[in-house]
Amino acid sequence: MARLNSNYLKLKAGYLFPEINRRVKAFTDANPEGAARLIRCGIGDVTEPLPAAVREAMHKAVDDMGARESFKGYGPEQGYEFLRHAIAENDYRAKGLEVADDEIFVSDGSKCDCGNILDIFGHDNRIAVMDPVYPVYVDTNVMAGHTGEGNDAGLYEGLVYLACTAENGFVPPVPAEKVDLIYLCYPNNPTGATATRAQLTAWVEYALANDAVILFDAAYEAYIKDADVPHSIYEIPGARRCAIEFRSFSKNGGFTGVRCAFTVVPKELECSTSTDERKPLHPLWNRRFSTKFNGVGYVIQRAAEALYSPEGKAQVAELVEHYMGNAAILRQAATDCGLPTFGGSNAPYIWVRGPGAATSWEIFDRVLNEANVVITPGSGFGPAGEGYFRISAFNSRANALEVAKRLAVIDWK
Amino acid sequence: MARLNSNYLKLKAGYLFPEINRRVKAFTDANPEGAARLIRCGIGDVTEPLPAAVREAMHKAVDDMGARESFKGYGPEQGYEFLRHAIAENDYRAKGLEVADDEIFVSDGSKCDCGNILDIFGHDNRIAVMDPVYPVYVDTNVMAGHTGEGNDAGLYEGLVYLACTAENGFVPPVPAEKVDLIYLCYPNNPTGATATRAQLTAWVEYALANDAVILFDAAYEAYIKDADVPHSIYEIPGARRCAIEFRSFSKNGGFTGVRCAFTVVPKELECSTSTDERKPLHPLWNRRFSTKFNGVGYVIQRAAEALYSPEGKAQVAELVEHYMGNAAILRQAATDCGLPTFGGSNAPYIWVRGPGAATSWEIFDRVLNEANVVITPGSGFGPAGEGYFRISAFNSRANALEVAKRLAVIDWK
Repeated sequence: MARLNSNYLKLKAGYLFPEINRRVKAFTDANPEGAARLIRCGIGDVTEPLPAAVREAMHKAVDDMGARESFKGYGPEQGYEFLRHAIAENDYRAKGLEVADDEIFVSDGSKCDCGNILDIFGHDNRIAVMDPVYPVYVDTNVMAGHTGEGNDAGLYEGLVYLACTAENGFVPPVPAEKVDLIYLCYPNNPTGATATRAQLTAWVEYALANDAVILFDAAYEAYIKDADVPHSIYEIPGARRCAIEFRSFSKNGGFTGVRCAFTVVPKELECSTSTDERKPLHPLWNRRFSTKFNGVGYVIQRAAEALYSPEGKAQVAELVEHYMGNAAILRQAATDCGLPTFGGSNAPYIWVRGPGAATSWEIFDRVLNEANVVITPGSGFGPAGEGYFRISAFNSRANALEVAKRLAVIDWK
Repeated sequence: MARLNSNYLKLKAGYLFPEINRRVKAFTDANPEGAARLIRCGIGDVTEPLPAAVREAMHKAVDDMGARESFKGYGPEQGYEFLRHAIAENDYRAKGLEVADDEIFVSDGSKCDCGNILDIFGHDNRIAVMDPVYPVYVDTNVMAGHTGEGNDAGLYEGLVYLACTAENGFVPPVPAEKVDLIYLCYPNNPTGATATRAQLTAWVEYALANDAVILFDAAYEAYIKDADVPHSIYEIPGARRCAIEFRSFSKNGGFTGVRCAFTVVPKELECSTSTDERKPLHPLWNRRFSTKFNGVGYVIQRAAEALYSPEGKAQVAELVEHYMGNAAILRQAATDCGLPTFGGSNAPYIWVRGPGAATSWEIFDRVLNEANVVITPGSGFGPAGEGYFRISAFNSRANALEVAKRLAVIDWK
């Protein structure tokens, strides 16, 4: 009798954003007027047009596909050399960081990469995640059978949770106990916090001392404004021996609907086999790409390449500037409401402490009903997010200004 | 200490096509003249331009991405309704087969789907594969820990191999023993064989009797010419309760470099949990999409939709006609060499028995050296393929004619 993967049945609820969509739909179905004024600051999805340089490159690539001589069928599973080179050169080597072209693996999204990376690890690793956390890290571990049951607060047995609190500036210290895989995300989703060089150094030293691997999600790297905040884990000495980095074109180039991202797996990074030999991870990830993936489409890879042209870089900078302008407006608006407000300076997310004992979902419903604005409840990211909510700066300027106005009208007492 | 997935270390060799590339590169590096005349009939990769209707749709969709009002960010992970509907309507309901829009899951490739599908199954299923077989089915099971070690012939302990031989017309009968997951691929890669309605009915009856699940790969469905050959497993009564179907736009629309495919998971399909309850698979696959995937890019989904327009359908028919014209030429050429020749009538692959005791790789090297043509060694697909080779019909007409000529020159004795 065929068996299904019973680990899926441990998953507590729908993925966060489907649940938000459900509540928004219930609201808009019942309130046509509210529906008409609805502004979404929930899901971190870009709203502005794709950069002109990208569209131009895509048009050209589509034309390439129209002639036998320039037609492209299967490409290398790991990405075309033109894109792997542009990434390694611009994002790393130009900044003094050693990353080889063939250490770049081009994929169709960081969400996929963050989930798929578990394929190359054993099932007996002790896994640490931040709390609150991007739900994908936790849910993919549940699905892979790396956890026990979940409790009502959404915590799963067997995972080590690193609480991110106002007290620790939403940057948890290394744990006293030993863990093997550590998910870190800076600039952080959902809190917008960044880690200092010293804080990341402590993590790299911990990982090297404990033979642990850091899974470093740098999807929001482009939003870093402060000069001393590290953009890559590889700025920390020793990180090539203990860290995989995830990056995405979703939030810098506005590629959420285009789908392109990449991982960096340094060749020095080794793990132990079931018989305690040390072996590099790079060939495993390479093999996974060869066997379970057929590369990102040619037109899309040309689109990503265009982000590295002078025009592309300028247009990305404009996009980032636009969203960070929104972030400043929304951050100020939340502060003006008298609410403790975090993030929004080096990240497109504002993390706000709600009033009194209100739960995150209570705040969500209230902001939806009273201001017709969709935010994301902090508890959806984990129990340490309870009482908080996240405002996304991904919007038009007009919407950001309008949301700022509406937040001021709510009686936050 | 972080552990890697030691199952990867069981994989015997590089994936077949990288090994072919290695040998071709060694040959072309050493033989500039041979390199200049090289014709590739190895990997099943399309060569002709993308249909005009598709390119037009892509240009339009790129323009959509250039205006705030028509810009598309994250789409539904399972695919846009416009595409799920076009697929279910055209490929199934118009042919009298019951498939709902939300039973269609749009992905970036059948290779990914065939590998990822294992995520939703338990680790204790008994798995049957055909031999010879598309290597992805086997390798992804090795990587998931569903096998023991492999032997030198490439067979892994723990898998049930269904030998495809000239005697059974390359369509193996249902096994006497009990298995839980069965990979079937018709029209077949690599043999080009098709299964009759009676043969597929036997499989569906076997699956229903044994609570097994059929993973039906119909990537080459568009190449079926004979009216009585089933295009879909769902043409067989009862299949909705026991089969998942994989389809791809790679070989009909020429999307190998575009990347779009889909799976069909009927809602009636159930499996047992670890506590022997029966539960549907559809919510698990749906959850996998929500959690580990972010949908196929908007431009690409518009490209796939265009294949269902009247122009798109006509252009796909032309492409198929072109490649099947090549198949007829190559099939005749192999037959004229006095070699037992199969496939090529309802599939773009010709499966040829080499002379005497020559191994598949000996034939590969010989055809490469003497004719400067790249074919695929049959043993690369499994030990039952030993002594055979596969010729792909994906090429220009000029190349197909030239290959036919060159095959005739080889002394096949």
